[in-house]
Amino acid sequence: MKYCFGVDVGGTTVKMGLFQEDGMLKEKWEIVTRKENGGENILPDIAESIKEKLEETGISKEAVIGIGMGIPAPIKEDGIVKNTANLGWGYKEVKKELEELTGFTVATGNDANVAALGEMWQGGGKGHKNMVMVTLGTGVGGGIIMEGKCLVGGHGAGGEIGHLCVNYEETDCCGCGKQGCLEQYASATGIARLAKQRLAKDDKPSILRKKADNTAKDVFDAVKAGDEVADEIAVEFGNYLGHALANIAVVCDPTVFVIGGGVSKAGEILFKYIEKAYMEKAFFANKDIQFRLATLGNDAGICGAAKLVL
Amino acid sequence: MKYCFGVDVGGTTVKMGLFQEDGMLKEKWEIVTRKENGGENILPDIAESIKEKLEETGISKEAVIGIGMGIPAPIKEDGIVKNTANLGWGYKEVKKELEELTGFTVATGNDANVAALGEMWQGGGKGHKNMVMVTLGTGVGGGIIMEGKCLVGGHGAGGEIGHLCVNYEETDCCGCGKQGCLEQYASATGIARLAKQRLAKDDKPSILRKKADNTAKDVFDAVKAGDEVADEIAVEFGNYLGHALANIAVVCDPTVFVIGGGVSKAGEILFKYIEKAYMEKAFFANKDIQFRLATLGNDAGICGAAKLVL
Repeated sequence: MKYCFGVDVGGTTVKMGLFQEDGMLKEKWEIVTRKENGGENILPDIAESIKEKLEETGISKEAVIGIGMGIPAPIKEDGIVKNTANLGWGYKEVKKELEELTGFTVATGNDANVAALGEMWQGGGKGHKNMVMVTLGTGVGGGIIMEGKCLVGGHGAGGEIGHLCVNYEETDCCGCGKQGCLEQYASATGIARLAKQRLAKDDKPSILRKKADNTAKDVFDAVKAGDEVADEIAVEFGNYLGHALANIAVVCDPTVFVIGGGVSKAGEILFKYIEKAYMEKAFFANKDIQFRLATLGNDAGICGAAKLVL
Repeated sequence: MKYCFGVDVGGTTVKMGLFQEDGMLKEKWEIVTRKENGGENILPDIAESIKEKLEETGISKEAVIGIGMGIPAPIKEDGIVKNTANLGWGYKEVKKELEELTGFTVATGNDANVAALGEMWQGGGKGHKNMVMVTLGTGVGGGIIMEGKCLVGGHGAGGEIGHLCVNYEETDCCGCGKQGCLEQYASATGIARLAKQRLAKDDKPSILRKKADNTAKDVFDAVKAGDEVADEIAVEFGNYLGHALANIAVVCDPTVFVIGGGVSKAGEILFKYIEKAYMEKAFFANKDIQFRLATLGNDAGICGAAKLVL
């Protein structure tokens, strides 16, 4: 039996997994991301943790295929990062440095793309080769898999679908500095914002009026309880997201959309809104499509990272 | 020296090219597309024409690497067409049939994607690996190249960017049945439509008022002559197209846009309008980009087809 490591580098912890070559996750653990001093300890800590795991499990170096790694920054196949918002790294030859530290082959990718690859391999996108993953969290992230491989793009910024413009009339700014980004309507914060705007519009009764600030979870709980105002908010969310997905589909033509992130905990009810809006605006060639929930949660990153080397 | 054939199947003629393996186009010619009887003669005619060309040039069968072919329909790597609007074919195993007829390896692709591949290889996109080609003709076509390969998509419909929705307020229908498609504003017909609408709005003097119906060429000729109304029409065209390209860029992150088709004959002046609008709406990671004109004209198709097998 051969093995590989899947590593998902985050701003707080580094998630690590030891996988069998058949894709079975054998063990998973986490180490702290030491960001101080320009993040100089991050790669040596990862190398050390892998070395310890090999000693602990008695797996020989010869049985290791390599290390796959997801990084929270644009990164191309050369494994070079130019800058990171969360790790302290400036220019860094990530792939080369970890290969020198460990002696193993290293493959790298952007964390969102790598998580998408994980979901395609073992999660919500299983059975598909052309997939768009949408992560509805604090922001809206994305990862695109075409013919089984991450769509990296020319600057390592492929699949940044949170910054698709969906409303040219918007005056409020997105975190990126533009106006009308999908993230402003379909993220957890975006849904909370839509709720606030809707409630301010009139006095229609709603259980959402009990609180000054409702979360995305509050909105979808109210939808499930039959609240009409919450339903209107969900329709607006679904229109922005569904129409955005229709535009994404004419570009890259997936066969499945996988929805993950905190907002996706609302479950299948999301599809009622997203899929309806999608079908209204989708090009005929893109209508043969499935909508699925992500299933791997926090393991998507290590799983996709492992897939990079398998 | 080895050789290959590039074949571009169109509704009226089949364009054919004999290429050296170094990419040099040695000869090009055309045959008629015989669409009658469900297009049953098209592939045998191509096979016959290739056989004749080999006899004529004295090139041996052993020196032929293969045949690449662009088809005006969604087609995936399996080389199977499900339906065609222009050739009379229904379900057809194009790759397999032409391989049996010729004895050579055949690779197939959608004509727009294949033309984009040609432009990347020898035309406006030379030096780039991640490119979006936009063809502004009667309609708006597109082809996306990522890491040097066509983005085919799950249904062979990748890069159908003419049907990106750019105006959710539109009430007129696009040929596809949707409203607000890019094609309604940025194709030759779309620009003529924008001109008509603008001229009907008020009485501002313009050289465009001499005719009842202006073409896209009339509009850009008037722009070059300093006509203010024509400039306003070009700004509107540029906004729709530039904003659409910004949305395409967050999905697939190219490093170059190549603009081709009849409208592109207006020349570099197009970029004044398209690039300005693009930069206004582009995500920061997508701003390092070039805009170029297509250079291969009608040879893009045979050229990209040859590249499929080289």
